[in-house]
Amino acid sequence: MVTEDEAMRRAIALAARGLGTTSPNPVVGCLLLSPEGEVVGEGFHAYAGGPHAEIVALAQAGERARGGTCVVTLEPCNHTGRTGPCSDALIQAGLRRVVIAVDDPNPVASGGAATMRAAGLQVATGMRRPDAELGNIAWLTAVRRGRPYVTWKFAATLDGRSAAADGTSQWVSSAESRADVHVLRSTVDAIVAGVGTVLADDPQLTVRDLRDGSLAIKQPLRVVVDSHGRTPTTARVRDAAASTWIVTTAEAGPGPDGRVDLTAVLTGLFERGIRNVLLEGGPTLAGAFLAAGLVDRVIGYVAPKLLGAGRAALVDAGISTIAEALELDFTDIAQIGADLRFTATLRPKPSDHPAHRPSSE
Amino acid sequence: MVTEDEAMRRAIALAARGLGTTSPNPVVGCLLLSPEGEVVGEGFHAYAGGPHAEIVALAQAGERARGGTCVVTLEPCNHTGRTGPCSDALIQAGLRRVVIAVDDPNPVASGGAATMRAAGLQVATGMRRPDAELGNIAWLTAVRRGRPYVTWKFAATLDGRSAAADGTSQWVSSAESRADVHVLRSTVDAIVAGVGTVLADDPQLTVRDLRDGSLAIKQPLRVVVDSHGRTPTTARVRDAAASTWIVTTAEAGPGPDGRVDLTAVLTGLFERGIRNVLLEGGPTLAGAFLAAGLVDRVIGYVAPKLLGAGRAALVDAGISTIAEALELDFTDIAQIGADLRFTATLRPKPSDHPAHRPSSE
Ligand SMILES: NC(=O)c1ccc[n+]([C@@H]2O[C@H](COP(=O)([O-])OP(=O)(O)OC[C@H]3O[C@@H](n4cnc5c(N)ncnc54)[C@H](OP(=O)(O)O)[C@@H]3O)[C@@H](O)[C@H]2O)c1
Ligand SMILES: NC(=O)c1ccc[n+]([C@@H]2O[C@H](COP(=O)([O-])OP(=O)(O)OC[C@H]3O[C@@H](n4cnc5c(N)ncnc54)[C@H](OP(=O)(O)O)[C@@H]3O)[C@@H](O)[C@H]2O)c1
Repeated sequence: MVTEDEAMRRAIALAARGLGTTSPNPVVGCLLLSPEGEVVGEGFHAYAGGPHAEIVALAQAGERARGGTCVVTLEPCNHTGRTGPCSDALIQAGLRRVVIAVDDPNPVASGGAATMRAAGLQVATGMRRPDAELGNIAWLTAVRRGRPYVTWKFAATLDGRSAAADGTSQWVSSAESRADVHVLRSTVDAIVAGVGTVLADDPQLTVRDLRDGSLAIKQPLRVVVDSHGRTPTTARVRDAAASTWIVTTAEAGPGPDGRVDLTAVLTGLFERGIRNVLLEGGPTLAGAFLAAGLVDRVIGYVAPKLLGAGRAALVDAGISTIAEALELDFTDIAQIGADLRFTATLRPKPSDHPAHRPSSE
Repeated sequence: MVTEDEAMRRAIALAARGLGTTSPNPVVGCLLLSPEGEVVGEGFHAYAGGPHAEIVALAQAGERARGGTCVVTLEPCNHTGRTGPCSDALIQAGLRRVVIAVDDPNPVASGGAATMRAAGLQVATGMRRPDAELGNIAWLTAVRRGRPYVTWKFAATLDGRSAAADGTSQWVSSAESRADVHVLRSTVDAIVAGVGTVLADDPQLTVRDLRDGSLAIKQPLRVVVDSHGRTPTTARVRDAAASTWIVTTAEAGPGPDGRVDLTAVLTGLFERGIRNVLLEGGPTLAGAFLAAGLVDRVIGYVAPKLLGAGRAALVDAGISTIAEALELDFTDIAQIGADLRFTATLRPKPSDHPAHRPSSE
């Protein structure tokens, strides 16, 4: 016997297992409870094109779900895409009640709740909505903004340096933090870096097991923002380990400063089905993304070191006075090995109001 | 009925109430238990020249301590200073057993345990020693090094800036963090700042109630490190709210770089009975203290803001490559209002071995 609230908590945890493989779809988790409140089926949406969470759970439950309750993190879809509508499947299976955390904001897929109500099912919405929204934050934000959700990740010392005066930076952060970054990469659809970082560090930008170097099965798209195509043909980011997009001004068009138009980059990624982007720097590209209001979240790995000289973690974000500082809110603070990891979300600026945003959104 | 372990925990908490007013003495807390294990007396050392913790507790307990146990954070003193030896007082009061967390490292005062053992008391040492040492860290470190314990405190943004490009910095950190700094100041004997900070910000460097501006009764000594005596006669740091020491090269002598000799400043403070110093910056003076190996602990208030330009929180610490970065360990991470506050201690460098340290220590 589990309560509906416990079932929803479990469904949210299940949903998270799809992070990094469901785009352009959301992550979804589902539990089915028998009329007696026993868990008779569970599922999550594992990859785009694969069965929806509800269908996985129904297949597991079979007849035992009849008369029972479906607890699901996102409103069941109402349309026939690569699979049939989940709302119909739940009606057919004889469910009595459906508990939903978050309404589907996607006009094409929404309407499932109404369809099920019309068929006589009890439908309750909003249970643990904040937790479920957080679990789907990238997808929800991307759908709302028409551009991928962008997380800027950086590593720095206590005094905000990402390299020493002579340019050395290996390793600012600990082995545990570097492993954590690979977990983070495994949850996104694309990794973006500036050509400055590619020229300086020649990173591979893949998801790997750091112990043996083995590559994960699913690799995010690698994106290099590179106005004049300076990425060397021998750069590791061009290797066969994953797909790569070298975005030049010729392809994406110039932004206001003549360099690659970053809004166009994000729009292009959205059109490719990408919802969740990890911006890995460097400091110049991060500054440009922040100045353009294109960052949603910041994750910083702060090593317990002091340098007192060397490259700053962030430059040129277009801010000259303290009143214009970009404001964030901490959402998580953790110790990762010897380091501190913080997660913080950008506060919407007054100018983020839709009426003031560029028409490309 | 309390256990001796519980009593020691309480004694450590009591001791902390003396922080900021006991120097050059340590903080000490004491509980007296009757033979049945009831708390019959408690005390802490409240200020230099005042009664020791044991004496306060004995006065409270009277005859009820006879045959009982004394639980005390530091080895009872054995010498007649401003007060008589506590070891004798405990023997006279008829205690049967004494439980001590930390041995007194001060050769002048130590020997209390041996005296009490010789008088037939049971003496146990080492209970909760790590906690008790942490509570007395400033005093213990100062006695060991022959210079005050130094905490560098700074405030910065997520990207390590302490001011924006145009110099504005009010307020990088939140009201809660600023109030927390006043609590921190109330635990130290002196506050040190560079003349650069005095000229730029004209801080008062006092312990105040930030709501009404009222001054705390006990104020730390204010110290300005000012090679050529540039501190204006009208500077707030010279006002009547607290004592002030403007240290010039003429007075303290020049260090290797011709500016005020920082080791001499700390030695001078130690000779004045100061054990616990808060270094409040700015970035130049902090860099010089760090380069000289004179910082024990760092407390950073990190505001959830990004600037991408402006003054760095730390400069010129004499480090040019990543392998030379100063290494620390986080000992506490907390949220203070909207900000993050970290506490980290400097790892001893190989050169910190006494044999390699300057003879002034
Ligand atoms: N600590 C960390 O977390 C971290 C992470 C990554 C990198 N890093 C360090 O950062 C250093 C490289 O940083 P960086 O600042 O020189 O380079 P970067 O930020 O990686 O790349 C900046 C370059 O991207 C190109 N670009 C194209 N369109 C742009 C636009 N709209 N806005 C901004 N840039 C655009 C520009 O070159 P073109 O005009 O030629 O295209 C620009 O110079 C490396 O040394 C690396 O070690 C540190
Ligand atoms: N965010 C924060 O937590 C924080 C805290 C404090 C200050 N600040 C900011 O820091 C700025 C001032 O910083 P700053 O770096 O210019 O000045 P500073 O560090 O406060 O003072 C540096 C000055 O101290 C004097 N000094 C004397 N002996 C020295 C020695 N051995 N080593 C180093 N300095 C010695 C030097 O001037 P002489 O040679 O003339 O003596 C030197 O220029 C202010 O604008 C303030 O807002 C920020």
